[in-house]
Amino acid sequence: MVKSPVSGTASGFSGASAPPSDSRQRVSAFLQQLQDHICTGLEAADGQGTFQEDSWKREEGGGGRSRVLKSGGVFEQGGVNFSEVWGQELPPSILVQRPEAAGHGFYATGTSMVLHPHSPYIPTVHLNYRYFEAGPVWWFGGGIDLTPYYPFTEDVVHFHQTLKDACDRHHKEYYPTFKRWCDEYFYLKHRQETRGVGGIFFDYQDGTRSKLYHGPNPKTSSNPTGTAAQYSDAVGEISPRSWEEIFAFVQGCGNAFLPAYLPIIDRRQGLEWGDRQRDFQLYRRGRYVEFNLVYDRGTIFGLQTNGRTESILMSLPPLVRWEYSYQPEPNSPEAQLYETFLKSQDWLGGGF
Amino acid sequence: MVKSPVSGTASGFSGASAPPSDSRQRVSAFLQQLQDHICTGLEAADGQGTFQEDSWKREEGGGGRSRVLKSGGVFEQGGVNFSEVWGQELPPSILVQRPEAAGHGFYATGTSMVLHPHSPYIPTVHLNYRYFEAGPVWWFGGGIDLTPYYPFTEDVVHFHQTLKDACDRHHKEYYPTFKRWCDEYFYLKHRQETRGVGGIFFDYQDGTRSKLYHGPNPKTSSNPTGTAAQYSDAVGEISPRSWEEIFAFVQGCGNAFLPAYLPIIDRRQGLEWGDRQRDFQLYRRGRYVEFNLVYDRGTIFGLQTNGRTESILMSLPPLVRWEYSYQPEPNSPEAQLYETFLKSQDWLGGGF
Repeated sequence: MVKSPVSGTASGFSGASAPPSDSRQRVSAFLQQLQDHICTGLEAADGQGTFQEDSWKREEGGGGRSRVLKSGGVFEQGGVNFSEVWGQELPPSILVQRPEAAGHGFYATGTSMVLHPHSPYIPTVHLNYRYFEAGPVWWFGGGIDLTPYYPFTEDVVHFHQTLKDACDRHHKEYYPTFKRWCDEYFYLKHRQETRGVGGIFFDYQDGTRSKLYHGPNPKTSSNPTGTAAQYSDAVGEISPRSWEEIFAFVQGCGNAFLPAYLPIIDRRQGLEWGDRQRDFQLYRRGRYVEFNLVYDRGTIFGLQTNGRTESILMSLPPLVRWEYSYQPEPNSPEAQLYETFLKSQDWLGGGF
Repeated sequence: MVKSPVSGTASGFSGASAPPSDSRQRVSAFLQQLQDHICTGLEAADGQGTFQEDSWKREEGGGGRSRVLKSGGVFEQGGVNFSEVWGQELPPSILVQRPEAAGHGFYATGTSMVLHPHSPYIPTVHLNYRYFEAGPVWWFGGGIDLTPYYPFTEDVVHFHQTLKDACDRHHKEYYPTFKRWCDEYFYLKHRQETRGVGGIFFDYQDGTRSKLYHGPNPKTSSNPTGTAAQYSDAVGEISPRSWEEIFAFVQGCGNAFLPAYLPIIDRRQGLEWGDRQRDFQLYRRGRYVEFNLVYDRGTIFGLQTNGRTESILMSLPPLVRWEYSYQPEPNSPEAQLYETFLKSQDWLGGGF
């Protein structure tokens, strides 16, 4: 891996809470450990497949390591990427949100993952955590969200409860705020569906703000990609937090992934499935493609910054189906998915 | 079909060449006839499948008729749509190009088609012709382009020659200009590939300009979707043309589709193919999805104007595959497709 430029000095950052001088190295080291930890846990759960790694460099600065597991015992395809890139200026889609960064060099590092299991009874899952520094600003973003094909309430409750526990260790406003933000972000406006049952998502966490901002409401926003919308709709009040506090929270979220997901594999991998379930899974995977290519901020950032296309689009499913005017059979499990699981729900019953 | 508002009066349009008072009715009637004509020709070529029609209305104004043929003798899926919509104002992606239309109501009608054959030896093909009126401006746009999976030069030459002949009947600058525009528009910047072997494409043809503008060069443009780029790179000089002249040209282009495409089916449908060809076809279909969801102006317009999602996304293939880091075998037909057919080429040898 090419050595990244050193962090900005504390005096270069605005606000009360500047990052420490080794911020880049510490976040990058954590995100690489997270990639290792997740890959080890997934290989153990899969039982057959192993991750193949490609290391790559980016011409404008930086690089990464992409890991893919294909045709495993549980996973049809899984990708876990780490990347660390820098350059002269952030792309316009981000500068709209952080105009203070205009004209400054940037540093960005992240770990992202998407898993597509063979069994239609095991949900697809996505994780992404990222960190940016650009001129006077820095922030963390990311989240974890689940996309089931068949409606098992206990799996969704377990997933949300594990994330809530990880959030609650840091601040009681985190889970309700970031759960709602996730539902709004992973929303397909043109289908009027959530991508799945959500999880948590946040962006632009820089600690200097006294409110936890959530994203634009894509159901009412005129800019469904959210790239140019203003985050003016605050839902949680919170006192300013330090860089260390937010980094600790991000570490807690990253480490919550395996305990949130692996028990769902255990519960579902013995269930038999046939053509009907497989057809529905392939059809629903089309929504994943639609979301990632039409709305997803990480995908747009990657393509706009001449990122490595194969790594960015590793999130796309290995096999997908589209069917004109598909409608689920009434009172079927497929219909239940649409009626209950593809709408924002209060899975833990605590209100939101 | 809901009756559309009457055309603007001639005095409401800027420029020397205003549309006739029955412009909307005439274009709409032609585009519906084109849909009928294409569907009849395709059913005859398919031999087994028939188009099923859905008529639909749009809440804000207008509607359409969507026709789909599934699991035919030749076509795995084919969709031919007609739509006619109106509303209070064009979406921002178009107003950037036509700021004169801001604050005015708009009328838009179009016919579009995408065909996905079973045989990997028969290319996918796309047609779209459309007409807009908005305040003081009006324009025609559209084109036809071919996306082969296997490299048959004679098919591509026949296709381009038929389009060139149709263009040459109207103006000798049309084919070279609109052929180049097509190569630039149907370009996947993140893959550094053309979508296929092109054809012709044009937009914003309003007759009042003395140059034939082509689109932004997506290889160099910072806005790969082209939605905000300026059309400043003129390639052909031409004297102003009337609405009637441009409409006649669009009719000629629409009617050139069947003779450009059907002979390719005849030549290729007897060829046997196996898993290797099918796998490559499904993989390459992924590029079609990437183009339509990331770059295509028609798709973005449809989703932004609350169009009918099922009709807009009818262009997506019935079955698609993604494969991380796929590389064609050296010296194979698949490699030849990449080396020659996914780059802009002078198929007719006349220079461009």
